[in-house]
Amino acid sequence: MEIERKFLLPAPPDDLDRHPSTEIEQGYLAIHADGTEVRVRRRGGTATLTVKSGGGKVRAEEELGLSDADFERLWPLTDGRRIEKVRHVIPTDTDGVEIELDVYTGDLAGLVVAEIEFPGEAEADAFAAPEWLGREVTGDGRFKNQRLAVEGRPDEAG
Amino acid sequence: MEIERKFLLPAPPDDLDRHPSTEIEQGYLAIHADGTEVRVRRRGGTATLTVKSGGGKVRAEEELGLSDADFERLWPLTDGRRIEKVRHVIPTDTDGVEIELDVYTGDLAGLVVAEIEFPGEAEADAFAAPEWLGREVTGDGRFKNQRLAVEGRPDEAG
Repeated sequence: MEIERKFLLPAPPDDLDRHPSTEIEQGYLAIHADGTEVRVRRRGGTATLTVKSGGGKVRAEEELGLSDADFERLWPLTDGRRIEKVRHVIPTDTDGVEIELDVYTGDLAGLVVAEIEFPGEAEADAFAAPEWLGREVTGDGRFKNQRLAVEGRPDEAG
Repeated sequence: MEIERKFLLPAPPDDLDRHPSTEIEQGYLAIHADGTEVRVRRRGGTATLTVKSGGGKVRAEEELGLSDADFERLWPLTDGRRIEKVRHVIPTDTDGVEIELDVYTGDLAGLVVAEIEFPGEAEADAFAAPEWLGREVTGDGRFKNQRLAVEGRPDEAG
């Protein structure tokens, strides 16, 4: 289980290069009508297959490791349902809570979204977002990666 | 790629026990609107994850082996999208072409469907179906495993 909050930044922060970053390629094999998704992802040298059950702030999730060869076999089946982004990991004042700041590239270039995972609902509610994080879009389905992959960038973003 | 024809039997043939059979548990993690499906299956002792791209007689397909532990982790995410069946494999007069005859159990009990995979379109067209195979349902979407798993047994079947 994971609890997440999500923010839409008007632009990347200036000091982004101070933080570690990795390139992420992510493609959706299938997205069920109830929101359940199966995606493959390669982040740095590591490839995974992830299943997330349908919508909401609390979702069941399972992840499998993939060999590079398996990733390469599955990737073509995600054609038309892909995102590419550079993820920057930024610490917060709360132990174990980090901001994952995604700067999208490719078709979604210009979009900057931050995601924060919390150990529980209480911690999520208690988090005071710094102003530079911009507008909260936790409940806005258009900013879900699965919809960005299929529908592209929302008009008002970036 | 695979070329398949499919038949709906009124009942299982009498001599079914002469042929080797295995139990199959199959659950769908997600089915995309374009027909692309991601399923997990355990057949005998072997578990796999399969991705098939959207509809039609010719479909792209990739398969990964799964450990028993991985299968057990993913299986709960197929709740409400499952089929159980016993598959009997019956030889034909054509070298390398077998009839896979599925006798469904569980919620789909009473349904009997035969699938035949061919190396190419020419072989599929040339195959003369024996009378006991019943009615051809190759083009009938209601008999796709993915729809049986979600929608249940068609009214007229069995």
